[in-house]
Amino acid sequence: MKNFEFEPPYYAVIFTSQRNSVELGYAEMADRMVELAAQQTGYLGVESVRGADGLGITVSYWRGLQDIAAWRRQGEHEQARNQGRADWYSHYALRIAKVERAYGWDAADGSADPMLASRG
Amino acid sequence: MKNFEFEPPYYAVIFTSQRNSVELGYAEMADRMVELAAQQTGYLGVESVRGADGLGITVSYWRGLQDIAAWRRQGEHEQARNQGRADWYSHYALRIAKVERAYGWDAADGSADPMLASRG
Repeated sequence: MKNFEFEPPYYAVIFTSQRNSVELGYAEMADRMVELAAQQTGYLGVESVRGADGLGITVSYWRGLQDIAAWRRQGEHEQARNQGRADWYSHYALRIAKVERAYGWDAADGSADPMLASRG
Repeated sequence: MKNFEFEPPYYAVIFTSQRNSVELGYAEMADRMVELAAQQTGYLGVESVRGADGLGITVSYWRGLQDIAAWRRQGEHEQARNQGRADWYSHYALRIAKVERAYGWDAADGSADPMLASRG
């Protein structure tokens, strides 16, 4: 994950969600939120996966807690969250976590454990 | 996520991985690691999703850093990680993060923002 190699500490927002079967408007909202988040101060990146059963995990990375709070107050984001609860999700969990250590590995690096290697 | 409602602080291990096309042995290893993790001291739970494109996010939750370190030293887990680098992954990132705040929402709770509600 070359594009996420930031030096800790930084913050992760872990959003685990179960989608219901309502498709109308969801994909457009999800794309728009990724686009909008990337414009916010302190945004570092996002990783997002949804499985065939509708369970999804999105982790967004931020420089500081104040950046997360500002993104939370962003008007279009707030509206999307409200619509999410009304229309698109069955349940979700949201966790705010401070990343203390981070390691990356790529097959091109060979098979050694990256946690045992010294990193710059 | 009723089964993850633990009071912070606790720890999250965020494992984001890109699978290659080698299927042999992968599913069995993944199931076994979930089973084995659940037997470790300090294990709180796991959330895991893999998309059709092979990108996956697994977040496991632990009471403390010492529990994560012990799980890391577990022999069968270490062997699985080594095989993962040799056989199953193109690249991955691993982050260890301290969960400072956690919120849950379920459609049965109504549409109010859980971050605005007081929680016990």
